[in-house]
Amino acid sequence: MSQGRHVTLAHGNGGRFMRELIDTIFARHLANAQLDTNADAAHLPLPEGEVLATTDGFTVQPLAFPGGDIGSLAVHGTVNDLAVAGAVPVYLTLNAFIEEGLEFSQLESFVVSMAAAAKADDVRVVADDVKVVRRDEGSGLCLATAGIGVRPAGLRLGLDRICEGDRILVSGTVGDHGAAVLLARGGFGLKGELRSDAARVLPLTKAVRDIPGLRFMRDPTRGGVATVMHDIVRANGRCVRLQEPSIPIREQVSGVCEILGYDPLFLACEGRVVAIVSPGDAPRVLDIWREQAPGADAADIGCVEGQGLHVVLETRMGGERTIEELEDDPLPRIC
Amino acid sequence: MSQGRHVTLAHGNGGRFMRELIDTIFARHLANAQLDTNADAAHLPLPEGEVLATTDGFTVQPLAFPGGDIGSLAVHGTVNDLAVAGAVPVYLTLNAFIEEGLEFSQLESFVVSMAAAAKADDVRVVADDVKVVRRDEGSGLCLATAGIGVRPAGLRLGLDRICEGDRILVSGTVGDHGAAVLLARGGFGLKGELRSDAARVLPLTKAVRDIPGLRFMRDPTRGGVATVMHDIVRANGRCVRLQEPSIPIREQVSGVCEILGYDPLFLACEGRVVAIVSPGDAPRVLDIWREQAPGADAADIGCVEGQGLHVVLETRMGGERTIEELEDDPLPRIC
Repeated sequence: MSQGRHVTLAHGNGGRFMRELIDTIFARHLANAQLDTNADAAHLPLPEGEVLATTDGFTVQPLAFPGGDIGSLAVHGTVNDLAVAGAVPVYLTLNAFIEEGLEFSQLESFVVSMAAAAKADDVRVVADDVKVVRRDEGSGLCLATAGIGVRPAGLRLGLDRICEGDRILVSGTVGDHGAAVLLARGGFGLKGELRSDAARVLPLTKAVRDIPGLRFMRDPTRGGVATVMHDIVRANGRCVRLQEPSIPIREQVSGVCEILGYDPLFLACEGRVVAIVSPGDAPRVLDIWREQAPGADAADIGCVEGQGLHVVLETRMGGERTIEELEDDPLPRIC
Repeated sequence: MSQGRHVTLAHGNGGRFMRELIDTIFARHLANAQLDTNADAAHLPLPEGEVLATTDGFTVQPLAFPGGDIGSLAVHGTVNDLAVAGAVPVYLTLNAFIEEGLEFSQLESFVVSMAAAAKADDVRVVADDVKVVRRDEGSGLCLATAGIGVRPAGLRLGLDRICEGDRILVSGTVGDHGAAVLLARGGFGLKGELRSDAARVLPLTKAVRDIPGLRFMRDPTRGGVATVMHDIVRANGRCVRLQEPSIPIREQVSGVCEILGYDPLFLACEGRVVAIVSPGDAPRVLDIWREQAPGADAADIGCVEGQGLHVVLETRMGGERTIEELEDDPLPRIC
């Protein structure tokens, strides 16, 4: 880049430097038939079905962590929101807010990572926009992605479909992403091999979306599994009961949580699915998930009960405790 | 809000405070049939036609200025990118990156302004996401919007359709937004009545999009009219010739530019359209525009010439000067 090795305010001004930044970093790695940096809007041919849209912003700190970085997270995060709604993701749009002074090489590594995630997820980035904010008015890089996907007409999944007696399934271990980001921040004197679970969930959701007893799916990101449980409780006026011994949690995650005083049920996952399924179809969903590598640790972790507004955890020790809704932030800037 | 009068990190954590922030500020003002804060993705019924998408980020400083604020800008900016591509905008998604400490009342005023702009533009905000960044790691508020629109099948507008002899039209005065934001920053000892031109351009674009001689439209935002001219030159290998006396510029804008050393041709507009039209159809486009209040000052400001790579300005004094591509940022954070 003729301007040097760091992003400057001039890279956000709409002129030559911005064009070079977009061409040499963004368009170069994200190139596809729909992405035309000379057009104001991209034309999107869409497969048959109902069109769904979603959006997510990303401010994770640090920008890179074992198992991913802000680039891959910005793709998987939005793609996964479409997948749990029963859709096949097709397109993404991308906004980058870059802090003046960010190194080109670092920015490029995130875009490369984003391109790899988009390839894995089979989605195309069809529009992008770059803004540069002043030094000390940003945190390196914030990203926002919006996603467009298509689901079969008539597929209905939703919190309102959940019934008493439904089983609560999770596709894998809980809290890996939150704990991995926490460790990557350092400052706790803790080290470990823990990697984020950040990944696409489409193979998991697509494989089960047509099972009639599937009521609802959600990826337990910010606020973790516990927050999804509270979403269910609030939407339905029912109780949720979780069995602690059934919840798959890596030993390293429990260890980190014990030392630092976090509850793994509140830690973000970025590649897991929580599904609510009729008791009859729950074993089928589990079987299908367990056949896939990312679903190897899938488990039935509890059930939906009758009226009430509590999330209850049956503990390993045989007791019961109520899991309150998340209030103070246990772990800011996790995604 | 139970948490007090300022946004805290806990408002970005996925828990109760975040839900309250979204419910009481975002969902309350932006409510519509598609926006379901309990769903991971929104189902978007779409009218017949080709689907287009675009995205834009907003970091304007100050957050409010005469004629608009970051909220209305975030709607008009993205909606206008769809409009100049010949589409009718239908849906928006919204990302907010809020700096810890922003006052609720201020945030709400931007969301109210966004809701009013969305209503005027007849678009629905169908998905939103909120992230909170640490104090001193943001600039109050950054927004990103992605837009989805529909254009008639077969409508083709593009830089590649531009021919030698085509006329260059602008729908109104140039540089109002840039100059208004500049004045709103204060610190120059300048005051004035100048207002941003930020507004939707759909009535202007929709009224002319089916005219056969219409080749291309663009809204001259960051980098201004001069940057659109360079887009044309670069894409076509042709020259562009502008007639300075024909370019509508408010006296106050010229005055500000003269004092501060800016060229109004590089100042952003946020409610104008540049159209490239065949010589035969140019008068028709101008007539249609001038019938509308926002197009009252529409003008033919120049033409596309033969091979070459220059943007030439015929000055008021009868001379000629080349307008170079924007390099250093004359005015950062304008949108």
